[in-house]
Amino acid sequence: MNKKGIDIISIGDEILIGQIVNTNSSWMADKLNSKALPINRIIAIADSKKAITEALIDSGNSAKLVLVTGGLGPTKDDITKKTVCELFGGKLIVNKEVEEHVRSFFIKRGRDLTKLNSDQALVPDNCVVIFNAQGTAPAMYFIKDETHYVFMPGVPFEMKGLMTSWVIPHFSSLCEVPYIAQKTVLTSGMGESFLAEKISQWENDLGDNTSLAYLPSPGKVRLRISVKSDKKELADSTLEKHIYNLHQIIPDLIYGYNNDTLEGIVGQLLTSNNSTIATAESCTGGLIAHKLTSIAGSSTYFIGGITAYNNSIKQAMLNIPESTIEEHGAVSEEVAKLMAKNVREIMGTDIGISTTGIAGPSGGSEDKPVGTVWIGFATKDTISAKKYLFGDQRERNTNWSVQTALNTIRKHFKSKHDDIVG
Amino acid sequence: MNKKGIDIISIGDEILIGQIVNTNSSWMADKLNSKALPINRIIAIADSKKAITEALIDSGNSAKLVLVTGGLGPTKDDITKKTVCELFGGKLIVNKEVEEHVRSFFIKRGRDLTKLNSDQALVPDNCVVIFNAQGTAPAMYFIKDETHYVFMPGVPFEMKGLMTSWVIPHFSSLCEVPYIAQKTVLTSGMGESFLAEKISQWENDLGDNTSLAYLPSPGKVRLRISVKSDKKELADSTLEKHIYNLHQIIPDLIYGYNNDTLEGIVGQLLTSNNSTIATAESCTGGLIAHKLTSIAGSSTYFIGGITAYNNSIKQAMLNIPESTIEEHGAVSEEVAKLMAKNVREIMGTDIGISTTGIAGPSGGSEDKPVGTVWIGFATKDTISAKKYLFGDQRERNTNWSVQTALNTIRKHFKSKHDDIVG
Repeated sequence: MNKKGIDIISIGDEILIGQIVNTNSSWMADKLNSKALPINRIIAIADSKKAITEALIDSGNSAKLVLVTGGLGPTKDDITKKTVCELFGGKLIVNKEVEEHVRSFFIKRGRDLTKLNSDQALVPDNCVVIFNAQGTAPAMYFIKDETHYVFMPGVPFEMKGLMTSWVIPHFSSLCEVPYIAQKTVLTSGMGESFLAEKISQWENDLGDNTSLAYLPSPGKVRLRISVKSDKKELADSTLEKHIYNLHQIIPDLIYGYNNDTLEGIVGQLLTSNNSTIATAESCTGGLIAHKLTSIAGSSTYFIGGITAYNNSIKQAMLNIPESTIEEHGAVSEEVAKLMAKNVREIMGTDIGISTTGIAGPSGGSEDKPVGTVWIGFATKDTISAKKYLFGDQRERNTNWSVQTALNTIRKHFKSKHDDIVG
Repeated sequence: MNKKGIDIISIGDEILIGQIVNTNSSWMADKLNSKALPINRIIAIADSKKAITEALIDSGNSAKLVLVTGGLGPTKDDITKKTVCELFGGKLIVNKEVEEHVRSFFIKRGRDLTKLNSDQALVPDNCVVIFNAQGTAPAMYFIKDETHYVFMPGVPFEMKGLMTSWVIPHFSSLCEVPYIAQKTVLTSGMGESFLAEKISQWENDLGDNTSLAYLPSPGKVRLRISVKSDKKELADSTLEKHIYNLHQIIPDLIYGYNNDTLEGIVGQLLTSNNSTIATAESCTGGLIAHKLTSIAGSSTYFIGGITAYNNSIKQAMLNIPESTIEEHGAVSEEVAKLMAKNVREIMGTDIGISTTGIAGPSGGSEDKPVGTVWIGFATKDTISAKKYLFGDQRERNTNWSVQTALNTIRKHFKSKHDDIVG
């Protein structure tokens, strides 16, 4: 069988019972992927001899490299080393260098060395010992039947230190891998299936070496484009061409790339345009203000917000006339517009943004079902409001409303920019 | 081979390249574990025919139940259904009920049905179709060679709906497992290591059939207690005894059980005490208001809030005298107290809660380092404020402040109750 790719194995009962989320694996996968080292599988198994043995045999049959984390700590539930000795043939012996390292590690911290800790210096006599600068348990490296195995401790910062200092450089140089150029295009303003139809021709033209993944969440669809090639330059330029072409089709929907956030992009736009903003929220209950202020440095553009949940607060603090609410209802174009206009004036900002809607589960009517949300937007020159119908789940409605409100602010600057350059 | 246990398989390139963390699997593992349904392995694989085929064959050889998520959305990167047909024998046919469900799903939202969406009604003719109330793609259930397979969409809330409504009840009734009585005790107000010391004697006395897990997050520590026994009654009564004893040691720290949230508990307390509340937030930027309004029905007690980020808003909208800010600084006991007092008066509520602090990363000083937060609390009878020092991480600071503010409200009602019964 032709062995290839990487299997990541996480040993630990705490993952299998859902007590912790396997963030080690996703960190490793991200780092390996950025070096075009291809991953076959991510596997989590129990702290048992049987599970470890079966997983190592199974992955050894198909993978070129097996990266194992966990099961190397000082406490009793760690049986990895013994199992590995039985499987790969080998005896546990004291490694003098590791022993010295463990000892000095404890002396430095003014703590006594226990039997449990000194056992960390026991390693199989047939492995290469990889020094762990961040902790006491070393990593162990085996090659058997053309498969490479590296065993690392499961403590995140120890694993990360070993990956960065040794695993990634070592295997990057060993492997001849095709280069993968990758970028994630972030869009907002159109649902997954409509977006897929709109860009179907572009998608069909991507070619065999390019793959596309849709990653939807409320109010956003991320598009991950990957181009594989033996030639780095070709992959990079092909990727840029695809993104350029995509931009021609959906210029208004794209708000950023990779790890950008809508609130971060909006923050940049407010900063670079020297603009300030205030929020008037009803159904989103303060979440727009929270998102805006989650960005470090937001105090330069975010002045303040009013969560006007009760209609009395809409009247008293946002100066919405009682008659307007009576005539049109609190969830209406008129109220959304006035909320945005008035909060801008009250707080003396360049922009006002507002939400009023029915988050659910109750409060809906035939005319205004749960999920009906008006988003208002005001500057000194314009006042507008738009109606949306999101759905019947309270939490999703709120998130969807917030993303849409942030996207409304982004589009304002985008169209302003288009006015100038267009 | 004697098949046993459960394999969870997550399909998705985005997991293998580390773009998203596999939280679906840990949620599923937690729910299955709470019903004593044993998990063998958690596996993540690529969106490819080869990877899906190999994983299904491999897990089918050893597991009694295989739960698969992902690869059932409307876009092209989803090839699961075709692969399953080839592997299990079967043809894709239109399921009339699903088609009708998909159609009404779109009509309700006032949107057109696309070809991609109507394809969701295509299901293998040899599976049992499990209705997905939360979305359009149904789950599919197969039994082959004594292994049960369930395929679910990867969208978290759709998967959760299917697991809760069908998968867990169905397989709980099929399997004979030792009974596990389990409850998670939710605490707020003391860090993990101090809490561990405080309850160490209780922990030592738990006995062999009981296990304890600490699950810390900013401002909260959850304690999950599991008692295993062949006898349901014995397990249940042992668990209740442990919880009773724990309550004797830390009565004030426990705010709820299992899936309770602090905002939900606070909502119940406000409702049952017929009290209303308003928020005045600076460093938390609206997140307290958002948490309070995330509870359905919160409009009966949450009246409104002011996010006074800029000092001008603290003055203009919360009537904090400029001289007070100049003399004591915006992050001070005096300002926190006035914010809580004034927002209560302005909005006419029973309770006012406030935050003012330095979220970071900048803005700290030797006197008031990043992480300094004052939380103010006011009723018609009392005005108080307390200082906290959380840490240097912006996001953690915000979350920690919000949890602490919510816990402050909870403790107010707790002490009121103690006054009456004491």
